[in-house]
Amino acid sequence: MGKQAMFSYKLTVAYDGTNYNGFQRQKNGVGVQQVLEKALSTLLQDTIDLQAAGRTDAGVHAQGQVVSFTSKTKFPAEKLPLALDHLLPTDIVVVKGESVNEAFHARYDAVQKTYQYKIKLTARPDPCLQHYAWQISSDLAVEKMQQAADYLLGTHDFSTFRNSGAANKNPVRTISQAKWRQKGKELTFTVTGDGFLYRMVRNLVGTLVKVGEGKITPQDFARLLEEKDRDAIEMPAPAQGLYLMKVKY
Amino acid sequence: MGKQAMFSYKLTVAYDGTNYNGFQRQKNGVGVQQVLEKALSTLLQDTIDLQAAGRTDAGVHAQGQVVSFTSKTKFPAEKLPLALDHLLPTDIVVVKGESVNEAFHARYDAVQKTYQYKIKLTARPDPCLQHYAWQISSDLAVEKMQQAADYLLGTHDFSTFRNSGAANKNPVRTISQAKWRQKGKELTFTVTGDGFLYRMVRNLVGTLVKVGEGKITPQDFARLLEEKDRDAIEMPAPAQGLYLMKVKY
Repeated sequence: MGKQAMFSYKLTVAYDGTNYNGFQRQKNGVGVQQVLEKALSTLLQDTIDLQAAGRTDAGVHAQGQVVSFTSKTKFPAEKLPLALDHLLPTDIVVVKGESVNEAFHARYDAVQKTYQYKIKLTARPDPCLQHYAWQISSDLAVEKMQQAADYLLGTHDFSTFRNSGAANKNPVRTISQAKWRQKGKELTFTVTGDGFLYRMVRNLVGTLVKVGEGKITPQDFARLLEEKDRDAIEMPAPAQGLYLMKVKY
Repeated sequence: MGKQAMFSYKLTVAYDGTNYNGFQRQKNGVGVQQVLEKALSTLLQDTIDLQAAGRTDAGVHAQGQVVSFTSKTKFPAEKLPLALDHLLPTDIVVVKGESVNEAFHARYDAVQKTYQYKIKLTARPDPCLQHYAWQISSDLAVEKMQQAADYLLGTHDFSTFRNSGAANKNPVRTISQAKWRQKGKELTFTVTGDGFLYRMVRNLVGTLVKVGEGKITPQDFARLLEEKDRDAIEMPAPAQGLYLMKVKY
């Protein structure tokens, strides 16, 4: 018998991570992945296993997560977004569907990722933002946060900003964008790199906020990066402010 | 026996209306009011009955709802916001507490209210905005929507834009602001008036969007307002885009 023909797909996915225990399949709680796989398996009448560009934590959102999968079922890829609407809850939206080469792998083939982190400066929390931003009541010196963020550009060993759990991976990453933008009381940090270590963006933002609060200087931040001492940094920024925006291949 | 001393309070309250069946106490589902009353009753060791400036519908949000109540318990009013944080869920936030004259009534003494309505123009829905904006996939002619909104300014009989349920009330209201603002793909309609009829803001926005879609002209909109024919207008804009922003006394 000949090899059965297989069809390969790439989906760009947005989700509100509030009600999910992260992207990946979970023992406790529901992951975005299993909801997507179930919808795809129903639509394509096949057992679908996804590969995802980034495994976002519980509570983290995505505007441009990318997943790939193969199926024995042929389906017009550009029609997958609308076809899946009826099978997915409203907090998961497939933005784009594409046919890809069989060799395409959403994680291994990613060459660049962009994350955003949202902060709202406010004396009292805005209840409508509780799941969508980090709300901070102190004022932040944004220009100092930008000075510190500038040290991230280029190729560095980011061990300082990695949480344990994947300690055997190469900790060297190249960052091409690390930009704070302020619009009134809203701060957005946009960071682009060839990849990110576990919890790296949240650890970076947590430490950059310490710079903004005046607790450490931009030069202290540079020294922390240099020293590769994970214990020197404090709490990661909370999950709900983080968004996976874009994956480039 | 002398009359017991009573203390009167005014609270400014923000809430995410997503998980509530409107502001008012409900037979089915939970209203914001009963959650606030329960927290206040616990804190003040008294049975608290609230009066609210506006009775928002299910799913409608508030940044500046105002409530008033009296209690036999004296409590420093400015400390009520923080004291209530531990007794309220995170989707209800008391922003400000004030002592007021015993005669103060949050509803009857309100002289002006401001609502905002948020629209996001997007081909595919953003899952993080599903509860916080009306997401529309067609483009809207904002300048035409503003032309139509200009007809609202001044004193008019707004019967056209009133839902039944309070038919015996005076339908004349004075509108002092009706402004569309566009920032990229986000539209915000800000409307200020001495008061609003039941569903009025959502009916106005639903009809203004018809203008933006080119289905009716700004002149048609003016005629609808003039004709006072409730049946001439269509669906109200969905609840989740509406925010009660400010009440003036």
